[in-house]
Amino acid sequence: MNQSVTIALDAMGGDHGTSIIVPAALEILGRHQDVSLILVGDQTELETRCGDSTTRFGERLRIHHATQQVGMDESPAAALRGKKDSSMRVAIDLVKNGEADACVSAGNTGALMATARFVLKTLPGIDRPAIISAMPSIRGHTHVLDLGANIDLDSGQLFQLAVMGATLVRAIDNIDRPRVGLLNVGAEEIKGNDGVKQAHALLTASSLNYIGFVEGDDVSTGDVDVIVCDGFVGNVALKTSEGLASMISHFMREAFSRNLLTRLAGLVAMPVLRNFKRRIDPRRYNGASLIGLQGIVIKSHGGADTFAFVNAIEIARIEVAKAVPQTIGEEIGHLLEATGTT
Amino acid sequence: MNQSVTIALDAMGGDHGTSIIVPAALEILGRHQDVSLILVGDQTELETRCGDSTTRFGERLRIHHATQQVGMDESPAAALRGKKDSSMRVAIDLVKNGEADACVSAGNTGALMATARFVLKTLPGIDRPAIISAMPSIRGHTHVLDLGANIDLDSGQLFQLAVMGATLVRAIDNIDRPRVGLLNVGAEEIKGNDGVKQAHALLTASSLNYIGFVEGDDVSTGDVDVIVCDGFVGNVALKTSEGLASMISHFMREAFSRNLLTRLAGLVAMPVLRNFKRRIDPRRYNGASLIGLQGIVIKSHGGADTFAFVNAIEIARIEVAKAVPQTIGEEIGHLLEATGTT
Repeated sequence: MNQSVTIALDAMGGDHGTSIIVPAALEILGRHQDVSLILVGDQTELETRCGDSTTRFGERLRIHHATQQVGMDESPAAALRGKKDSSMRVAIDLVKNGEADACVSAGNTGALMATARFVLKTLPGIDRPAIISAMPSIRGHTHVLDLGANIDLDSGQLFQLAVMGATLVRAIDNIDRPRVGLLNVGAEEIKGNDGVKQAHALLTASSLNYIGFVEGDDVSTGDVDVIVCDGFVGNVALKTSEGLASMISHFMREAFSRNLLTRLAGLVAMPVLRNFKRRIDPRRYNGASLIGLQGIVIKSHGGADTFAFVNAIEIARIEVAKAVPQTIGEEIGHLLEATGTT
Repeated sequence: MNQSVTIALDAMGGDHGTSIIVPAALEILGRHQDVSLILVGDQTELETRCGDSTTRFGERLRIHHATQQVGMDESPAAALRGKKDSSMRVAIDLVKNGEADACVSAGNTGALMATARFVLKTLPGIDRPAIISAMPSIRGHTHVLDLGANIDLDSGQLFQLAVMGATLVRAIDNIDRPRVGLLNVGAEEIKGNDGVKQAHALLTASSLNYIGFVEGDDVSTGDVDVIVCDGFVGNVALKTSEGLASMISHFMREAFSRNLLTRLAGLVAMPVLRNFKRRIDPRRYNGASLIGLQGIVIKSHGGADTFAFVNAIEIARIEVAKAVPQTIGEEIGHLLEATGTT
């Protein structure tokens, strides 16, 4: 990664806005000399937050004023129509006009997807963009898509997800032939709905490294690199996992804070527990990619803290270096041609 | 619970068959004087396993010979057609002809559902039976249905699931008006597919204590008692949770067994960790109910050990005492009438 990379940040997005996004930006600028950032949002607020950092990082840290903000509960249509100078919209516009190589937002997912799709457009051959993210597995992580951008996908659209997912994973994880699985309710071919069954046939006939049907527990086994599913199913799997993980943390804290004795035990076990918690820390997986677009857009969790938001910017940086949208565009052309599903 | 209860056990089902089911049966008989069990399966094998327990428990422990077994990967249609003397089929037949009040099987889910539906029939007003189970939550547990019996449910069928789930939870958890949530990809009314949106309208108009849309993380918050969803989605949520929980256990074992120091820390923390693990032990949640049928059928996890299988028998026992199918039958009659969805 020698060429310089410019990333636009929707600095007003998410639950904590500039209070976590500015510190995350400064962390990234300190870490990578080849990265420039454009903070998009309220100029006065951003100047105050940045303090003398604007002088310190010079041209690598710019502020781009935007007068509006997209609410976390605002409808995608309302945001698209009425918020043409929102920090989110302007960050995406900067990608469109080439001033930025990618953008990152912790804002409203629906509005982000709708705006990105409207401004950047989908890649030729892609019906619908999708949301993909890594989830932790025993041997590292598994990428899952779609996580909620699209529901009721047909078999051809599920096939496109597989191509996009495999291409992204090959690029960013350096896996030559990522193992692709199709999420189903059972490993036998008789199960599943028609869309899933037909997608299975398309994938079996394709040149992808398709390993067949997988089930929900395969997200964490590490036996598959990319799991393809409808956005409804993927979103429920993601949210259920997040809920379960936070419940487990809650129970663990409770168990160790019961009385003096358990507190002492907790003190002794602290370094081990910290190590353990680090492995499943959801902040390490923060940063979902909106793929299938003619540009790089990364969605951070709305409640992300600085550590988590830094991770989301790192993902943007890697996708720029690996030219993910261009690679997906080429790949989808080849594969759809080969399987006759154009 | 003063009246006596008779439960038939498919003693050959699951990954471990009689080796775990017979000890579980003996545990239950020791625990409850009012319970009688019928072990269905290979007579010779069962007699050997039971030893002198048949004498000890007298009429409360009977063996019912069955010559066949349903394979864990056998298709439901093949099991239904060709295995009329399987331990699974005979256990269900015993419920049908009134010799048993309920049956429990750790066998093949698809075959169990197909056979139970064929033999026992659905309750009047119910289109399709469903699978429901409790999943752990911060404040106790949440019941989720459907967990995989039916995919592509329409709004009326989702509504029926809600009625069945609420009735079961009221009966077995003694909650007067269980809070019912409909699983969706977002809490805003604009999201979700048509089936879910229409079911939302039906539920809003009903007399159920419907709290609206919930998301995957609400399985573990404890803010809802019954979560209703399509079987594809429910199955993925369940399996994803199982996978994540087992990954977390794996990481924790690994963290504490790294070296001598971490092993010592583990020793000190052992009582606390044991307490913590007990709360999320999936074996405590073993036993899913096939509901909507004219009879009680409990599905145990195929890989259940004795402790887990005992829990599944306990669920059967409670459902008999609370006359769950009869209560659902009455409830569905009232509610469907009131909302005009008959």
